[in-house]
Amino acid sequence: MSGEKPEGLAGVARTEAFSDGVFAIAITLLILSIQVPTPAGPGMLWAALALQWPAYVAYVLSFGVIGIMWANHHNIFRYIGRANHVFVMLNMALLFWVAFLPFPTAVLAKYLINPAERTTGVVLYGATLTCTALCFNVLWRYAATRRRLLRPDAGQDLVDGVTREYRFGPVFYLAATLVALVNVWVSLAIHGGLAALYVLPTKSRP
Amino acid sequence: MSGEKPEGLAGVARTEAFSDGVFAIAITLLILSIQVPTPAGPGMLWAALALQWPAYVAYVLSFGVIGIMWANHHNIFRYIGRANHVFVMLNMALLFWVAFLPFPTAVLAKYLINPAERTTGVVLYGATLTCTALCFNVLWRYAATRRRLLRPDAGQDLVDGVTREYRFGPVFYLAATLVALVNVWVSLAIHGGLAALYVLPTKSRP
Amino acid sequence: MSGEKPEGLAGVARTEAFSDGVFAIAITLLILSIQVPTPAGPGMLWAALALQWPAYVAYVLSFGVIGIMWANHHNIFRYIGRANHVFVMLNMALLFWVAFLPFPTAVLAKYLINPAERTTGVVLYGATLTCTALCFNVLWRYAATRRRLLRPDAGQDLVDGVTREYRFGPVFYLAATLVALVNVWVSLAIHGGLAALYVLPTKSRP
Amino acid sequence: MSGEKPEGLAGVARTEAFSDGVFAIAITLLILSIQVPTPAGPGMLWAALALQWPAYVAYVLSFGVIGIMWANHHNIFRYIGRANHVFVMLNMALLFWVAFLPFPTAVLAKYLINPAERTTGVVLYGATLTCTALCFNVLWRYAATRRRLLRPDAGQDLVDGVTREYRFGPVFYLAATLVALVNVWVSLAIHGGLAALYVLPTKSRP
Repeated sequence: MSGEKPEGLAGVARTEAFSDGVFAIAITLLILSIQVPTPAGPGMLWAALALQWPAYVAYVLSFGVIGIMWANHHNIFRYIGRANHVFVMLNMALLFWVAFLPFPTAVLAKYLINPAERTTGVVLYGATLTCTALCFNVLWRYAATRRRLLRPDAGQDLVDGVTREYRFGPVFYLAATLVALVNVWVSLAIHGGLAALYVLPTKSRP
Repeated sequence: MSGEKPEGLAGVARTEAFSDGVFAIAITLLILSIQVPTPAGPGMLWAALALQWPAYVAYVLSFGVIGIMWANHHNIFRYIGRANHVFVMLNMALLFWVAFLPFPTAVLAKYLINPAERTTGVVLYGATLTCTALCFNVLWRYAATRRRLLRPDAGQDLVDGVTREYRFGPVFYLAATLVALVNVWVSLAIHGGLAALYVLPTKSRP
Repeated sequence: MSGEKPEGLAGVARTEAFSDGVFAIAITLLILSIQVPTPAGPGMLWAALALQWPAYVAYVLSFGVIGIMWANHHNIFRYIGRANHVFVMLNMALLFWVAFLPFPTAVLAKYLINPAERTTGVVLYGATLTCTALCFNVLWRYAATRRRLLRPDAGQDLVDGVTREYRFGPVFYLAATLVALVNVWVSLAIHGGLAALYVLPTKSRP
Repeated sequence: MSGEKPEGLAGVARTEAFSDGVFAIAITLLILSIQVPTPAGPGMLWAALALQWPAYVAYVLSFGVIGIMWANHHNIFRYIGRANHVFVMLNMALLFWVAFLPFPTAVLAKYLINPAERTTGVVLYGATLTCTALCFNVLWRYAATRRRLLRPDAGQDLVDGVTREYRFGPVFYLAATLVALVNVWVSLAIHGGLAALYVLPTKSRP
């Protein structure tokens, strides 16, 4: 491995490996937001499991979001040829929000069922995703502007396609967050829809 | 590493590394389903430890299942030459169930000893394994159909052997799940037997 | 990476990576066995922190044990040229005990201070280490017997040195476990001594 | 990979991978120190979330510290050409403190708001960072002294720059720890300032 790390030029490989670790741990820790329930009476475990459906919704949504974030991270790193200090720090800011996501997920799991608190939970959740998407954009823009850290063989058309595609992420997440102030279910539907949209293949995702 | 990731062709290496991370974390998080017990009286810690035998059964079973899933994942990736967006998403669906398994494991650990709830726990457990095995088959079938993502040097005989071998996984897990409705112990014995069967070497596992 | 994984010959690299993941997660999860204490009165947090010294002893010991296990694993894998199904399964058995260690560590952390239960805790701890050392020996013996999985360039002298060195691990751990029935402090001192001994460099550890 | 690990010379790659795992897990486990709060009354979830601001302060600070530690670790490993037993053990000592950090973080999160206990929390926190920085220096000094483990192509000027830069870490952390005895907020401000300072690029960080 060391042959790939010329002095004075921080390797991308270890940043990628560290990021993969954080993504993999954050996505697997999400399960801790689902508690083993206590049944209300004998033979009521099924009912108790069913009653905590918000925990499953939050788990599925956050698993999808982190999975997609990872796939996007994976995708843009294919174009990155080298890293520098600023890039490593911006990547750390992105990982900050990824690692933070289990907390709003647990809040959502507990309070989505509570009419008095659910708006707070969904706004917190959406705000976290907005921050994540913002950091993602800043990371990519820093690397792509004037091809600062790109590989020489990364086609400019593909690079511009990535820039265009990710540009709207923060806007949509912010919109979903604001919508939550009016209706939390519409907000969650937007979050789910954004995730579903990504699962479909597009030209920029071979 | 970057030399292995030609543009427009998602590398298999990072998908493998991310999957390894999720498998390794899920298998290690299982231990959190075993609680430190409180003895009923002085010198009774041994008894308290022994009383929570369902937690050990659930731990051993889930460790075996995730370990085998990882080994199978490892095994099929030897034949995979490249990844695309659909493959990465199908792999994410498989990882979803792998990361979910600590939850049914914790439910089993708590309720296997409870006659009124144990059927629920074993059915939930078996249903999770059935979903995992289904995702595993879909992932492999997607890659192997018309040799879509296979390495050129992957022998068709070996590929067909893998397809035949994994085909029955979901059927057996579904059977074990349905059997749980009649008798949870037979169901758990089938799960244990399926795991034990895998430990034996076969022709398709060098 | 794929170039290193000829068909019909399971690669060592992914087994190593998966093992590293389990070792790294198990060693980092140990911290969860140290609870944030509640002070008995205002300004008594220092006292409350000091009172839970058994948790620190258990943490330091288990961190040392897993760290050393990892270094040993690292050490023997330098001689391994290939893996097969049996080797992967034996490695999984070793990882089982490594991943299990946080549980006896948490038991030790809670009950070492309790005269009525501490023997149970130390015996459980020692028994787990004995199983770990046994699995470690079986794994190495399987690979080294008739040079089954060794690299062609692994010197037989060095290989024999490793076999000799690790042979006594299970014996010493078993002895420490039995000693615990008489005196838990001597047992813990043996565990600590075995760890300290390893930290010193020897001829077989460059 | 095995081609890079000549016998009798422990590879750096696996030490790096294991370290990355511990850093990634420790940084992601920090989120467990932020609890889902219980609101004081209907519609009070926002207030309850706001009230636990010390948990966020502790999380942000520790995330920054571990992130920077990882980046520094990454940085010095670019100069390391080989590892030996002592180096692996010193690295393990560094990882010990990194893996320990979630505990003082959780203590800080719980007690920073408590005037009678906050000094204890901040001193414990600072003492942990001082130990981490000390281990970091010892690790680097061991590798760099008489270029013991350095790559042949590592420029002596850059090496000396790293030595100079990291020399002051333990001193500053110790100062911040002692300052906490007088004023915890100044102490935390120093910790935050040291982290912020690092985020700026310097000549030794390309």
